[in-house]
Amino acid sequence: MIPKNVHFEQRLRDSFLSQPMMALIGAKLTRVEPGIVDVELPFSVSLTQHNGFLHGGTVATLGDTAAGYAAFSLIPADSDILTVEFKINYLAPAIGDRVVAQGRVIRNGRTLIVSQADLFAIEGEDRKLVATMIATMMCMHGKS
Amino acid sequence: MIPKNVHFEQRLRDSFLSQPMMALIGAKLTRVEPGIVDVELPFSVSLTQHNGFLHGGTVATLGDTAAGYAAFSLIPADSDILTVEFKINYLAPAIGDRVVAQGRVIRNGRTLIVSQADLFAIEGEDRKLVATMIATMMCMHGKS
Amino acid sequence: MIPKNVHFEQRLRDSFLSQPMMALIGAKLTRVEPGIVDVELPFSVSLTQHNGFLHGGTVATLGDTAAGYAAFSLIPADSDILTVEFKINYLAPAIGDRVVAQGRVIRNGRTLIVSQADLFAIEGEDRKLVATMIATMMCMHGKS
Amino acid sequence: MIPKNVHFEQRLRDSFLSQPMMALIGAKLTRVEPGIVDVELPFSVSLTQHNGFLHGGTVATLGDTAAGYAAFSLIPADSDILTVEFKINYLAPAIGDRVVAQGRVIRNGRTLIVSQADLFAIEGEDRKLVATMIATMMCMHGKS
Repeated sequence: MIPKNVHFEQRLRDSFLSQPMMALIGAKLTRVEPGIVDVELPFSVSLTQHNGFLHGGTVATLGDTAAGYAAFSLIPADSDILTVEFKINYLAPAIGDRVVAQGRVIRNGRTLIVSQADLFAIEGEDRKLVATMIATMMCMHGKS
Repeated sequence: MIPKNVHFEQRLRDSFLSQPMMALIGAKLTRVEPGIVDVELPFSVSLTQHNGFLHGGTVATLGDTAAGYAAFSLIPADSDILTVEFKINYLAPAIGDRVVAQGRVIRNGRTLIVSQADLFAIEGEDRKLVATMIATMMCMHGKS
Repeated sequence: MIPKNVHFEQRLRDSFLSQPMMALIGAKLTRVEPGIVDVELPFSVSLTQHNGFLHGGTVATLGDTAAGYAAFSLIPADSDILTVEFKINYLAPAIGDRVVAQGRVIRNGRTLIVSQADLFAIEGEDRKLVATMIATMMCMHGKS
Repeated sequence: MIPKNVHFEQRLRDSFLSQPMMALIGAKLTRVEPGIVDVELPFSVSLTQHNGFLHGGTVATLGDTAAGYAAFSLIPADSDILTVEFKINYLAPAIGDRVVAQGRVIRNGRTLIVSQADLFAIEGEDRKLVATMIATMMCMHGKS
C-alpha cells in the first residue's frame, strides 16, 4: 500500500508520543510501515484485572492503537484518523513478558479504512495469539 | 433478574477493588443491582489520546468493566466471568467532567451471558451518549 | 429525528419492493417512521437450517434490512445507504409464526449512521427477543 | 487441527444438504478440511438488493455457513454447533460470477470455537475480497 504522506513515519511517531494514555500504560511503537504498525507493551501488574491477567480493556487499547495507526500511515498529511468501531475476540489469557499488537490495513478506502489487529503474548521464546480485532477507521480529510 | 449469589454485591465490590487497572485509571463502581452495573470515570488528561479526548481504549475498558460486572452480578458464588468478545461503536468524542458506563444483561444464559453497555460523557447538567457496546461473557462454573 | 427527505416513506417503500431478496424470503415492510423501521418475516421451512430454526443468515438479513432502512429514512433524497459493517448476537432459537426486526437509529451523523435492530420471534401472543444487532451505515451523498 | 470425529466430512456434507436455506439460495459446499470449509454461491438476480449487488444478508449467510462448518469439522460426533455471534465488514460490492466464502478456525476451544471467514467475489480470472467476518461458535456437547 502506498502512503499519501511521504513523512508518514515521522508524523505517526510524533502522534504516538503525544498520547498521554500510551505513556501511562508504557506502550511502545515498534514497526511502522505503510499499512502495518506494531505496538508493544511490557507486562505490568498495574495493568491487570483481579486474576493477574492483563486487563481486557488494556488489550483492546493496544489493538485499537495498532489498528488505528496502521490506517494513519496511509492517509494524507492534512487529515486525521478516528475509530468508528471495533470488535475484539479474546482467545487466551494475556500473560507473559509483553504483549505485541500487530495492526494491518485490509481495506484502504478514501473515507473508511478497515484494519485487523492480532495480539500476541510473548514469554521468552513462546508467542501465543491472545486476541484478534477488526476495526473500522474514518479518515477525516482536512482535519489534521 | 435473580442473582444466584445472595452476597453478589459484596463479592462484586471486592472484585472491583482488587483490579489494579481500575485503580490506575481512577474508575469507581457506583450502581450495583442484579444484572445492572454502572462504572464512573472522572476525566483525566493522563487517559487521553493526542486530540485531548479520552482514549477509545479507556472508553472500551470502562464499557467492558460495566458489561462484565453486570454479568458477574448474576452468577453463582463458585464461578467467575470471562469476556469472550465485545464490539463497541464510538458515537461522539468522550470529553467532559466524567464518563459513566451503564452495563445491563440482555441474555442471562447458564454458560453465556450477553450484556450491553452505554457510555455517557457528563459535563455539568449535560449527558451525551458517546459509545455503545455489546459483549459476550462466559460463566466459568466452579472457577471462583 | 427529522428526515431530510419529506417523501422518505414512499422512497423507502419503493426501494424495499425493488429488492429481489426481500421477495425471495417473503419479508414485508411494516412500520416506517423517521429513524425507525420494522420488517416482518412469516416463518417458512425453506428459510431454515438443519435443526428447523430460521437460518441465522436469514435473521441477519432481516436485521440488516431493518437497521439499514431506519438509516435510509433520514438521508437526503439524492443519497443512498450502504452497510459498512454489523455485529449480531443470537440470543434464542428463531422459531415461531414470524420474526419481526425493529431497527432504530442511535446516531444520525452526516456520513455515518449507527442503527440497532432487535429481532423478536412471535408465536401467538408470545414475543421473544432472539437476536440483537448493531450496524454502521454510510450515507453516500449524491448517489441516489 | 485434528478433528474429533473421523467421519467429519460425511457428517458435514450431510448436514449441509439438509439445510433448506442452502438449497433456496443455491449454495454449494466445496472444500472440507479439518478447521477449513469453503462455500460457493453462483450469482443470481433473485439474491440481490435494489442496486443489483448480492444482498449483504446473503453474503453474511454464506460467511456464517463457512465459519460455522469450519468449527463443525472439529467437534465430536455427538455434538452440534451454534452461532453465538458474528461481525462482518463489507469491503466492496459483491458482484461477479460467484462468491466464495472461506471459513477457518482460529481458536479451537472445548466449548467456544472462533472462526474467521473471508468472502471473495469471482469474475473470470479476477478475485476480490468483498467482506470479512469473525464469528464465535458454541459446541453443544451431547446434542447431535
